[in-house]
Amino acid sequence: MVDEDKNEMVVTPWEVKGRVDYERLIREFGTQPLTEELLQKVAKHTDGLHLQLRRKLFFSHRDLDTVLDLYEKGTKFVLYTGRGPSGPVHIGHLVPWIFTRHLQEKFDTRLYFQMTDDEKFVIDDELELEETRKFAYENALDLIALGFKPENTFIIYDVQDIDLLYDIALEVAKRVTYSTAKATFGFQESTNIGWVFWPAIQAVPCFIHAKLTGENVPALIPAAIDQDPYWRITRDVAAKLGYYKPAQIHCRFLPGLGVGGKMSASEPETSIFTVDPPNVVKRKIWNAFTGGRPTVEEQKKLGGDPSICSVFQYFYFLFEEDDKKLAERELRCRNGEILCGECKIELTERVNKFLSEHQKKREKARNIIDKFHIKR
Amino acid sequence: MVDEDKNEMVVTPWEVKGRVDYERLIREFGTQPLTEELLQKVAKHTDGLHLQLRRKLFFSHRDLDTVLDLYEKGTKFVLYTGRGPSGPVHIGHLVPWIFTRHLQEKFDTRLYFQMTDDEKFVIDDELELEETRKFAYENALDLIALGFKPENTFIIYDVQDIDLLYDIALEVAKRVTYSTAKATFGFQESTNIGWVFWPAIQAVPCFIHAKLTGENVPALIPAAIDQDPYWRITRDVAAKLGYYKPAQIHCRFLPGLGVGGKMSASEPETSIFTVDPPNVVKRKIWNAFTGGRPTVEEQKKLGGDPSICSVFQYFYFLFEEDDKKLAERELRCRNGEILCGECKIELTERVNKFLSEHQKKREKARNIIDKFHIKR
Repeated sequence: MVDEDKNEMVVTPWEVKGRVDYERLIREFGTQPLTEELLQKVAKHTDGLHLQLRRKLFFSHRDLDTVLDLYEKGTKFVLYTGRGPSGPVHIGHLVPWIFTRHLQEKFDTRLYFQMTDDEKFVIDDELELEETRKFAYENALDLIALGFKPENTFIIYDVQDIDLLYDIALEVAKRVTYSTAKATFGFQESTNIGWVFWPAIQAVPCFIHAKLTGENVPALIPAAIDQDPYWRITRDVAAKLGYYKPAQIHCRFLPGLGVGGKMSASEPETSIFTVDPPNVVKRKIWNAFTGGRPTVEEQKKLGGDPSICSVFQYFYFLFEEDDKKLAERELRCRNGEILCGECKIELTERVNKFLSEHQKKREKARNIIDKFHIKR
Repeated sequence: MVDEDKNEMVVTPWEVKGRVDYERLIREFGTQPLTEELLQKVAKHTDGLHLQLRRKLFFSHRDLDTVLDLYEKGTKFVLYTGRGPSGPVHIGHLVPWIFTRHLQEKFDTRLYFQMTDDEKFVIDDELELEETRKFAYENALDLIALGFKPENTFIIYDVQDIDLLYDIALEVAKRVTYSTAKATFGFQESTNIGWVFWPAIQAVPCFIHAKLTGENVPALIPAAIDQDPYWRITRDVAAKLGYYKPAQIHCRFLPGLGVGGKMSASEPETSIFTVDPPNVVKRKIWNAFTGGRPTVEEQKKLGGDPSICSVFQYFYFLFEEDDKKLAERELRCRNGEILCGECKIELTERVNKFLSEHQKKREKARNIIDKFHIKR
């Protein structure tokens, strides 16, 4: 029963579970696949394709072609992504941020990053506003640690920055009926009115650049595909307000270390947090679900299955830059030439090396975090 | 048909029409009548009863007794009222404000006054945010002209002051389901999500004093009874947040110069605006609906009916302080000793005298309006 439930795909902004069928999401959400042609168009501006594009971590989009056309004709775009600060950041969260930083660098463009401390408060019965605001600060350290440029990166903390957001949110909210919001997000009679209003707040960073600078340019949103419903509503409203429709580029979810589903902070033993010490990382990876066989003999004889292996996924998403070495690892696994223990040890080393650096940068970020805040 | 519709009573925060049955409102809204005993309790602190209490303009309450008990034991209260700035202020709006100023003076207490520029924007398809914000400023001049003390009067402009309101609004919104809001306000599928959220914003000034000063004291809200639904929701939430339930004292609507209904800015010829010049006031009053007879002869023979006369209502609500003179006017009308033209001329003189002073104070208010704003 439990396994069956777990395999049924559920993808909403608040819940992702089951084995995710990304082709089906493209069809059901009505987005566009990232074609080779479009990828080549991106590559023209980025000195080759980023790992996350080569490996199809980003797989779907809306209007990316339009944004690139405008860019080539001289109209820049801004990047917009965000984070619901309901707990510490795990490695899965970093995936689209790393790609976003790459885009910022290559297109020399501004990023608006929304910390939705208000959302996490209204949707979670257990969380106090003080907690989500604290997480927003802590999570911002992780973002900054990735090397975003302060002069081009504006972190919006919803509660603290509501003075910048509220007028645009009202303009959006006035144009979204309860009926539309209900159909888009599955709101029910028991949903609280803060949650019902909230999609208007998430829309604001799509349009805030014009307010702050007077430049009306499109926003490009790199984010996991579960956030798509928000942009459907925002896109409908954009034209009425005289703005470009926000474009999007959608990524997959980094699987947790358990079976199926995305890495989730609510299952801490299957998530590697950015603040985890080395021994905790070691334990979590050691207990990870793999595609290996029950015994060494079987593994050597029959080989493993990297396609269901969470450890392999980590190499694939983040920890093996070299496509050739990745392919070798896959082949050696399938041929039974490598055991799960070896992969786990190697992954542990790489993750801990990465986190050791990240944690240092994260602490240094405390000194410069104010530089990433919108000045009044 | 039109007349029948007009007589059917409708009282919601957004619409008041028909002949209003105040006894029925007390029963249907579940409020308490202002008893003689309670009025005497008020009078102890106010050197006798204010005109608006003597004449039952304020007729209903919630928890006024509790607030007075607390006051007598040393716990002060704050006053809270407000205005939806969708147009210029008319004389009807001034009625509860005049009473509020009286309470501020007698109880030496703080007033929070909310200008709901956000509400008027989300509920009115025709209004732009820029307009409601402009009206909020203009309406504040009328408030200040009435003589409120700057050191004890804090005007909240929702959009401009959202940084002070948003965290408390979220706390409220989290505890109000769509179902409750729908039942209380009659929201429909076509209602926009800004409107659905908005009751949480109206609740905030009930609790803001504690945030600004650290003093947890009750709020007493003098306002027309159509606003009562908001406070029902707020009262339910108050206890959960550790605040006192807001108390209320409810007034009637000042009738317009036409037949039935309250004075409404949407029927400009039956409303006297505070910025109306003397000749406009004269014309509006001259065209007013009265309780007089069609001819002089009939009037002298049968007498008029002050109970349905809009001109008499103006003396009653605002322009005849002297109870004895008011009673004389009523009697002389019923006896046919006075004609409508005489009353209209006298009222015009009094209104224009009042407005002449008010308009001067209103202009001077531009110089001190900043003193009434909450400092950061």
